[in-house]
Amino acid sequence: MREVAIIGIGQTKVDEHWQRSIRDLAGEAIANALLDSSRNSFDALFSGNMLSGLIDQQNNLGSVIADWVGFKGESIKVESACSSGASAFRAGIIAVASGEIDSAMVVGVEKMTDSAPADITSALATAADSDWELEQGVSFVGLNALIMRRYMHEYGWKHADFAPFSMNAHANAVHNPNARLPFAITQKQYLNASMIAAPINLMDASPVGDGAAAALIVPLDRVLNEGRAIQISGSGSATDTISVHSRKTPLFLQAAYLSVQQAYKQARIKPEDVDFFELHDAFSIMSALSLEACGFAEQGQGPRLALDNEITPKGGRIPICTRGGLKARGHPVGATGMYQIVESVQQLRGECGEAQVEGAKIGMAQNIGGSGASILTHILRKI
Amino acid sequence: MREVAIIGIGQTKVDEHWQRSIRDLAGEAIANALLDSSRNSFDALFSGNMLSGLIDQQNNLGSVIADWVGFKGESIKVESACSSGASAFRAGIIAVASGEIDSAMVVGVEKMTDSAPADITSALATAADSDWELEQGVSFVGLNALIMRRYMHEYGWKHADFAPFSMNAHANAVHNPNARLPFAITQKQYLNASMIAAPINLMDASPVGDGAAAALIVPLDRVLNEGRAIQISGSGSATDTISVHSRKTPLFLQAAYLSVQQAYKQARIKPEDVDFFELHDAFSIMSALSLEACGFAEQGQGPRLALDNEITPKGGRIPICTRGGLKARGHPVGATGMYQIVESVQQLRGECGEAQVEGAKIGMAQNIGGSGASILTHILRKI
Repeated sequence: MREVAIIGIGQTKVDEHWQRSIRDLAGEAIANALLDSSRNSFDALFSGNMLSGLIDQQNNLGSVIADWVGFKGESIKVESACSSGASAFRAGIIAVASGEIDSAMVVGVEKMTDSAPADITSALATAADSDWELEQGVSFVGLNALIMRRYMHEYGWKHADFAPFSMNAHANAVHNPNARLPFAITQKQYLNASMIAAPINLMDASPVGDGAAAALIVPLDRVLNEGRAIQISGSGSATDTISVHSRKTPLFLQAAYLSVQQAYKQARIKPEDVDFFELHDAFSIMSALSLEACGFAEQGQGPRLALDNEITPKGGRIPICTRGGLKARGHPVGATGMYQIVESVQQLRGECGEAQVEGAKIGMAQNIGGSGASILTHILRKI
Repeated sequence: MREVAIIGIGQTKVDEHWQRSIRDLAGEAIANALLDSSRNSFDALFSGNMLSGLIDQQNNLGSVIADWVGFKGESIKVESACSSGASAFRAGIIAVASGEIDSAMVVGVEKMTDSAPADITSALATAADSDWELEQGVSFVGLNALIMRRYMHEYGWKHADFAPFSMNAHANAVHNPNARLPFAITQKQYLNASMIAAPINLMDASPVGDGAAAALIVPLDRVLNEGRAIQISGSGSATDTISVHSRKTPLFLQAAYLSVQQAYKQARIKPEDVDFFELHDAFSIMSALSLEACGFAEQGQGPRLALDNEITPKGGRIPICTRGGLKARGHPVGATGMYQIVESVQQLRGECGEAQVEGAKIGMAQNIGGSGASILTHILRKI
């Protein structure tokens, strides 16, 4: 396979876009990515989306978006719950790397805030096991609360120990004009936030939102002379049991481990080479588990990195959520994986202002679908 | 890209499988495909499905199916309405052809008959344009009825002229043990069937159903010595406007034309080289439009082929629906594209008994999503 690169990125603000349709959001991100790339066409379109069939009564979204942007070529939608964005990205990578096409536009898009919160909670629960988890009445946040409770019990952490994850994400979002919650929070605000499903409170949980993010993938050798091209140097994808109760332990993200090992091998790097890590902090416990599965902390020691100030963009050993993460940029589920890619490109281009990771050359993004059931890891490199 | 081939196929009967789950159906097809291939593993899993999120409350189906069959590697679901099966198949082809993986299991699966018919009608309508078609109250069969009415008006055909499409499909299904409606019908039965949305009656429309079909894709050069391998020699994918009213004419399947031209070019063949054609007869009018877009009949003249007995497996110029088609094998929507592939392999292997197309060497399958909005065409060749 040939090497590939990202030559253009685009996004919308993550927000409550009540006046806009899902195709309109996707179209804006695609148009922005084309403008950014100084190109005006692409060979195929890959969309990542989780919920349009269920809450927008719109399936066949690949055709819908293609139609909206005036494209008649191949256009498919990939769905893997909250990792739909990265799954679509990987499909685009393979299509260009294979030589079948010379450019792939990938867009992740989701529109959630028109629906009633109870409907969204039910819709998000379809990411878990319908027959063996949902049947018991557990919600998606409930599953994550069980994991967090067990983790605290097993390793002796208190709820307050997770505060730095949320505080770092919010502090970084202040510098991201596309973030949904661009304000800083204090430890007191974290501790006093409303409880959702103990021990997960409002400041442990990412907000839903509407948004779209896109990237244009092309062969690397065609853009070596364009200073803004960012190489995609590693891509890994793996799955785990859909039900949390089927795993040997609920406290280790096996699919994160498998996918990151593939990505490290492909990129020929080790964890210490990674300059920043856009991880999937849908809930603060997931930040800890992701850092551990990817080799940045021993099992059970993820919160230590956060408490030691090692996850911030300014001097941290492994900065995470540098544009706000899911917690503060927002989590429009099927779009999130592409926001992570777009934000990683911004870091590698040095466009992140006060949240810039100085001298960043290698960035990693990890997108999780379900309670760790499908996980994709991508490594991007400054040329 | 390297050449690829199908080395194993599997399927379940299309039926009302009330006692079985969607993962169970997918698992049976996958297990059968592995058995058929004399292999016991694969590198990645690609699933095609349209409705599991909407009617089974189960998204993230890639992980669900992977889990069920004990697989931890990459597993994604592709959705493009009724062409989801072929879209997943093409994703599998590209992944193997690229060299990224050495074997791809592709499964199309759908479970529809547990839901109330009105719910299924609403669910299927999500294949059309939610904002600009469904808002007007039209159903999916209603859209096809408008197309058929216009076609009859424009080209002077009577309803009875479409009877041979339905009669051929039913006659062939008698010889397919996996068909949902394995019985022959007479012209009188066709003409007297209950009206659904004029001029489409029950015998013009395909039945929904539950089912799964799978194929294992591997590099061609590894299986040249295995007599049962079937080469995938052409693959094309294209889109058209999602709304029928946005097209210059509703009577020409532009995406079928674009995708079949790609496939013909890749396979280096012409329409006259095709020995049989598994087309997407969701409604009888679609058989006519598909034959015309693919170069087997002039525009407006599709029914002539059927009336002249040119679509039957015994001596017809271009046999279609040789295992029953969507009309009589059944149309478990996201699975249909993979049933077409599996059945094409059976024809090329010479396993179709009384519905065998003698000496068949090149078969074509065409899968349509929405009212012609996304169309994929694949060409298979006996080695």
